[in-house]
Amino acid sequence: MDQEVKRRVLRLLTYGLYVLTTRHGDEISASTVNWVSQASFTPPLLMLAIKRGSRTHELIERSNTFVLNILGSDQKDVAQSFFKETTVEGNRINGLPFEPGPITGAPVLTELPAWVECKVRSAVKDGDHTVFVAEVVEVGLRRPNAKPLVMWDTGWFYGG
Amino acid sequence: MDQEVKRRVLRLLTYGLYVLTTRHGDEISASTVNWVSQASFTPPLLMLAIKRGSRTHELIERSNTFVLNILGSDQKDVAQSFFKETTVEGNRINGLPFEPGPITGAPVLTELPAWVECKVRSAVKDGDHTVFVAEVVEVGLRRPNAKPLVMWDTGWFYGG
Repeated sequence: MDQEVKRRVLRLLTYGLYVLTTRHGDEISASTVNWVSQASFTPPLLMLAIKRGSRTHELIERSNTFVLNILGSDQKDVAQSFFKETTVEGNRINGLPFEPGPITGAPVLTELPAWVECKVRSAVKDGDHTVFVAEVVEVGLRRPNAKPLVMWDTGWFYGG
Repeated sequence: MDQEVKRRVLRLLTYGLYVLTTRHGDEISASTVNWVSQASFTPPLLMLAIKRGSRTHELIERSNTFVLNILGSDQKDVAQSFFKETTVEGNRINGLPFEPGPITGAPVLTELPAWVECKVRSAVKDGDHTVFVAEVVEVGLRRPNAKPLVMWDTGWFYGG
């Protein structure tokens, strides 16, 4: 397989951008992710691939819960701020206000248009990421007319 | 959980559109799918959620292989033609020409800009779909400058 063609072809897949937050005890992690999709209607499930060895991966494994915060189309700067290490000060993560998710306590970022609270049901450890299959246990919609941030509109890639 | 809010929030996830083809012996199935993402760089893996009980699901389970054909932004009509049942006539599926994938023999749709040939490594049966985690074993790029079809540009939804 030609590695350059593989890189170019896999970069033709389409993604949104999200901030994944997770909490275990006093520890909190938040990071921008894009390898995300729904995986079932009934019950509602998501599938996500998260890099092994990352802090976010560790806290998902320990808590078995997370919140997927959906970025708005005007929040590329917010996406960027979650590429760096997580800093929690008071009720802010990397400068953004949060409150605990109602079911899991994982952080809900209140300035993002929508959020999905999840409990992990299974995990496939293969390659350099883990595929988590998780049940949607609560949702919130703060900006009903918001359009989501699409990876194509950022000029960024994660894939290939 | 409010079911209407759940539907609206899950419909904020961003997807591409693809034609998934699979073959077992003389049997061929092709269908338009969108619950797809990369799941690892090394080795390159994809994750897909495929509806249980569908013909495509059955043939993936039996062959353990498939091709993900990436639709171009000008191919909404092609996406639509694979919503219906698969009809194979000569070297055409639902009217579109194909050739066997080099590694798996699963159909490569030659009018689509790019394709990814995969071998299934694991499956998570949960909810009404199965999550397949599959290794990318070969790729092809026919239209290097093509832009992919994005679900938002079709007005369609599959999710919620």
